[in-house]
Amino acid sequence: MERNIYLSNTDLDVALKQYMERLNELNIQSKVEIIMTWDGNKRVLSRPVFSKFSSPNHNAAAMDGIMVVSEKTYSANEVNTVKLNRGRDFEYINTGHLIVDPYDAVIMIEDVMAIDDNQVGINVQASPWQHIRPIGEDIVAGEMILPENHTIRPIDIGAMLSGGVAEIQVFQKLKVAVIPTGNEITDNYGDLPLGKTFDTNSWTFKAILEDFGAIPIRVSPVPDVYEILREEILKKVESCDMIVINAGSSAGSMDYTKQLIEDLGEVLLHGIAIKPGKPTILGVIQGKPIIGVPGYPGSAFLVFEEVVGPIIKLLQKQEIKDRETIKAILSKRVVSSLKSKEYIRVKLGRVNGVMVATPLNKGAGVTMAIVKADGIFIVPKNSEGFEAGELVDIILTSDMGMIENTLVSIGSHDIIMDLIGSLMVRKSMEDTGKCMYLSSAHIGSMGGIMALKRGETHIAPIHLLDQITGEYNISYVEKYLGDDFGIIKGVRREQGIMTAKGNPMDVKTINDIGRKGLRFVNRQKGSGTRLLTDYLLSREGIDTALINGYDREFTTHMGVAAAVKSGTADVGVGVYSAAAALDLEFYLIGYEDYDFALSKALFEDERVKEFIKILRGKDLKEQLEEIGGYKIIQEEQ
Amino acid sequence: MERNIYLSNTDLDVALKQYMERLNELNIQSKVEIIMTWDGNKRVLSRPVFSKFSSPNHNAAAMDGIMVVSEKTYSANEVNTVKLNRGRDFEYINTGHLIVDPYDAVIMIEDVMAIDDNQVGINVQASPWQHIRPIGEDIVAGEMILPENHTIRPIDIGAMLSGGVAEIQVFQKLKVAVIPTGNEITDNYGDLPLGKTFDTNSWTFKAILEDFGAIPIRVSPVPDVYEILREEILKKVESCDMIVINAGSSAGSMDYTKQLIEDLGEVLLHGIAIKPGKPTILGVIQGKPIIGVPGYPGSAFLVFEEVVGPIIKLLQKQEIKDRETIKAILSKRVVSSLKSKEYIRVKLGRVNGVMVATPLNKGAGVTMAIVKADGIFIVPKNSEGFEAGELVDIILTSDMGMIENTLVSIGSHDIIMDLIGSLMVRKSMEDTGKCMYLSSAHIGSMGGIMALKRGETHIAPIHLLDQITGEYNISYVEKYLGDDFGIIKGVRREQGIMTAKGNPMDVKTINDIGRKGLRFVNRQKGSGTRLLTDYLLSREGIDTALINGYDREFTTHMGVAAAVKSGTADVGVGVYSAAAALDLEFYLIGYEDYDFALSKALFEDERVKEFIKILRGKDLKEQLEEIGGYKIIQEEQ
Repeated sequence: MERNIYLSNTDLDVALKQYMERLNELNIQSKVEIIMTWDGNKRVLSRPVFSKFSSPNHNAAAMDGIMVVSEKTYSANEVNTVKLNRGRDFEYINTGHLIVDPYDAVIMIEDVMAIDDNQVGINVQASPWQHIRPIGEDIVAGEMILPENHTIRPIDIGAMLSGGVAEIQVFQKLKVAVIPTGNEITDNYGDLPLGKTFDTNSWTFKAILEDFGAIPIRVSPVPDVYEILREEILKKVESCDMIVINAGSSAGSMDYTKQLIEDLGEVLLHGIAIKPGKPTILGVIQGKPIIGVPGYPGSAFLVFEEVVGPIIKLLQKQEIKDRETIKAILSKRVVSSLKSKEYIRVKLGRVNGVMVATPLNKGAGVTMAIVKADGIFIVPKNSEGFEAGELVDIILTSDMGMIENTLVSIGSHDIIMDLIGSLMVRKSMEDTGKCMYLSSAHIGSMGGIMALKRGETHIAPIHLLDQITGEYNISYVEKYLGDDFGIIKGVRREQGIMTAKGNPMDVKTINDIGRKGLRFVNRQKGSGTRLLTDYLLSREGIDTALINGYDREFTTHMGVAAAVKSGTADVGVGVYSAAAALDLEFYLIGYEDYDFALSKALFEDERVKEFIKILRGKDLKEQLEEIGGYKIIQEEQ
Repeated sequence: MERNIYLSNTDLDVALKQYMERLNELNIQSKVEIIMTWDGNKRVLSRPVFSKFSSPNHNAAAMDGIMVVSEKTYSANEVNTVKLNRGRDFEYINTGHLIVDPYDAVIMIEDVMAIDDNQVGINVQASPWQHIRPIGEDIVAGEMILPENHTIRPIDIGAMLSGGVAEIQVFQKLKVAVIPTGNEITDNYGDLPLGKTFDTNSWTFKAILEDFGAIPIRVSPVPDVYEILREEILKKVESCDMIVINAGSSAGSMDYTKQLIEDLGEVLLHGIAIKPGKPTILGVIQGKPIIGVPGYPGSAFLVFEEVVGPIIKLLQKQEIKDRETIKAILSKRVVSSLKSKEYIRVKLGRVNGVMVATPLNKGAGVTMAIVKADGIFIVPKNSEGFEAGELVDIILTSDMGMIENTLVSIGSHDIIMDLIGSLMVRKSMEDTGKCMYLSSAHIGSMGGIMALKRGETHIAPIHLLDQITGEYNISYVEKYLGDDFGIIKGVRREQGIMTAKGNPMDVKTINDIGRKGLRFVNRQKGSGTRLLTDYLLSREGIDTALINGYDREFTTHMGVAAAVKSGTADVGVGVYSAAAALDLEFYLIGYEDYDFALSKALFEDERVKEFIKILRGKDLKEQLEEIGGYKIIQEEQ
């Protein structure tokens, strides 16, 4: 089996241009169809629309009132009431109704005094054609209502029907096949045998395609077998306008996508200079565009948005809109490859009036970074990166209003941040009629303190043990942040040793961790749990250099718990809730205070107030009691 | 029949607040349902989603390559190749696949030299766990993936499925009945008998409701008959979650909506302080919200966006997003009522680096103003209006990129502006790969010159006769604009007298217009046609004071033609194309040059270049030949 190790490194815009030119050469064009105008929302007109009728198509009353012969009203004024007789001088009329001979003006009902059923009095004169909408005021027959290539909006449907246009010619929706591939991929979501991975990209693609107005045809995952994949591709080339193959576009021994496209048609390009997403394939089979999209969810999503999306929009003649960008201060240094244009997801928050962008995990496999992101920071090719504090452009992917209503938290992780985050949306609506959000990034307690100092976050969840006083958090805030900062007391939680169910290696105390033959897994430096672990290990006189796995670090309790659960480690330290979530054994080693540091000025912030309200509320209390291992601390400082 | 002349004048935000409070009191709540995750795009979660599985759920290769026992690689370096044997020291592995015992690291394929089928050599050492994605790297089992009240996006579907969540609980879509009413309203779009008007609003509402994610149930127009309307409402109260009645909400003698809601349920409010859209009714029947929306398309659309929309979103628990606003300079004075918050549609364009907002026709009946608008200018209640030149906030309704690519034209109207506007979209895509637009506002030739002088437009289409030299346009540009401005020669066109088919009043010359008993219809002052008409009338010595209808002015050729066509006037002056479009008689009175004035600096602008290319191109020539009455002038000045 030949491997496609060497990929090209073509710039994204060049790749798209070359591909579209090739599709043009091959005369791959959008087909058109006739549809009813009222089915036209979001469709693209393939020819301009001209009105068939004027609107209004008759002279029509512009007000509710009476239509009159204007000449007969000329002597009316404040002191002279003119009497008009129904059927001769006037007739009642409603807005939109036909003005008939001999009437040539409308007087509004507010200015009409009914004398009896057939007579009214007026004290205002009517000028000819007043309050009458003339024929064609809105649209004149024969006028162009909309140009070609226009994407139809709801109001356009009304305008076209006003002009009597009930049928329109539009570009056909593109039928796009989505073929997930891979022996390890399953779409049986009830069960996940070892080594299998759920198919997720194909469903994300399906939803994006629907948003694009295309018709997605998704199939179940196809195994990495040349003949089976070949047959599936040929079937879809027959029945669809375009094919997207997910995964198999890289250099693995079972990556058949490139080979298959070459065998069945032509590969125009393999490898685009974007990160993530490099191993993308652009090809054509029997006059149908076929695109190989890499498998990692992060790469797949980016390639779908930046490569597949523009191609579909160009083929569907849709406008490619500029994305809204804002300026923000980078909160962390970003290092990037010189060889690609790199797309980094960021979380945004306005802190002390400054918009701050915090880069999220760069891993290509990480879906949650995209889920949590508010924007994209693009590092151009040939740039080595950007420094913390630089003002950069961020493409918005969240709504600005949402970002402004978000309380930003950077610091230590605890499941209560998830719980408060979920309660925040509902409770803030109930309490204030306005939706507020909690965004929570996890870089450990000391990381949170530093982020607070640099003005990147509103609050910092911390659990930092003062090894001299034995107190938690307060001395750290005083030392690193000063008098302008304070603490919201949070929860007291149980820290302990986590082991696999049944505790096969018999580890129950800090002392046991030093035992030879055990595989330990640690938290990162600067985290409260690491401080506690180091404090206890040193108190017991254990040399950390002798602990196998002391350098293997995770940034969350759940990360440590998952490592123990999977059997790649025998023991780790973490909170009760993490152990309970993954059904691990838990041996208490101490209690600690998980509090929230913040600028004192922020105590009056409505988001902070809502946060405190939820923290002290009964919903959170009930949820924590169910999880176990927590106690809410009521006092504030 | 009682008339509801007096409406309340409640502020919009107060009205919405009162109404939502009343719905809450009545316990009108959104129902929930369970759906498959992949059907969840755009739905709103009614509870948070927690993952069932970790992702990845096993330790997985992060690269294509070989999995190795890391200890066996430690002696590899640039000068020492370590040989590894398949099945003992290494195994080939693809991205995402399971790492099995005893392997604990991955070396990427680029660093692997195949020696034979079962042996490879490496010159790099592997540290434990390198290039391995640990269990839970993306999502840990039990972690919250999304909070409640979150509106699901495509990437969220992938994230939930990554966590093994195949079913989710969401709020039900609201089923909304749309009932158009009115004896004059028809939805037979093939034919339009005198006095009838096409139903257009209900279809616009249907499309908006779909965009909101609701389920629209539209019925054919219901006549203004109390009993029939009553029956229709009761049927829909039975089967839907909410009812929208279009028209009949005002003060006409057949406006039954308020009466019906009172008889069947409760009217909470009648009359909101917005313009257009005041006669809006908010009510409840049998626990179902029912809203009476005024009939004029402009009012209907605004009320649907500002009143019905927010109510549906609140009931569906959707986020009401802030709309993007920009700053722009008003190009015209805006006068507004003190009594209402007024919504004025504007056209935007960047001219000489400044964003300029030109208010469009304010008529409540005018759909085309909404179709052509790029934004909304809101004049607050208690404001009398704003002066030209003031910097104001505009809510964007078009894409900024589209606005930046728009060539702004203000001046005289001719059908070639429509034709070029339509060609511009397609041709610019073909020529430059970028979509460009032409926006065209019609305020006459002198209006165009003045707009150009004030910097509100890029080009001004003009046809201004110099009564001394007999030449067109050039002397006006020199006199009013100066040396920095020039002209793009446009078309020579035929001007003439327009009469009804068969010329029943026998009008063929300018002289005939002075005849007693004729009803004339004029163009507005400052238009080229008005100048020509006045010039010819004065040459013939005709006293304009004696012309019946000399003061009845329209701002377009088509407006004049439509007035003649409808029989409210016997004669008007205009171009051949307008007469031909409405099948009128046409008697030539002269030729004129319809040219484009602009700043000379703009000759290098890409939008102007594209405009000139289309003006001189064969597509436009062919279309003008088909219409007749035009000749393209080739030279430029």
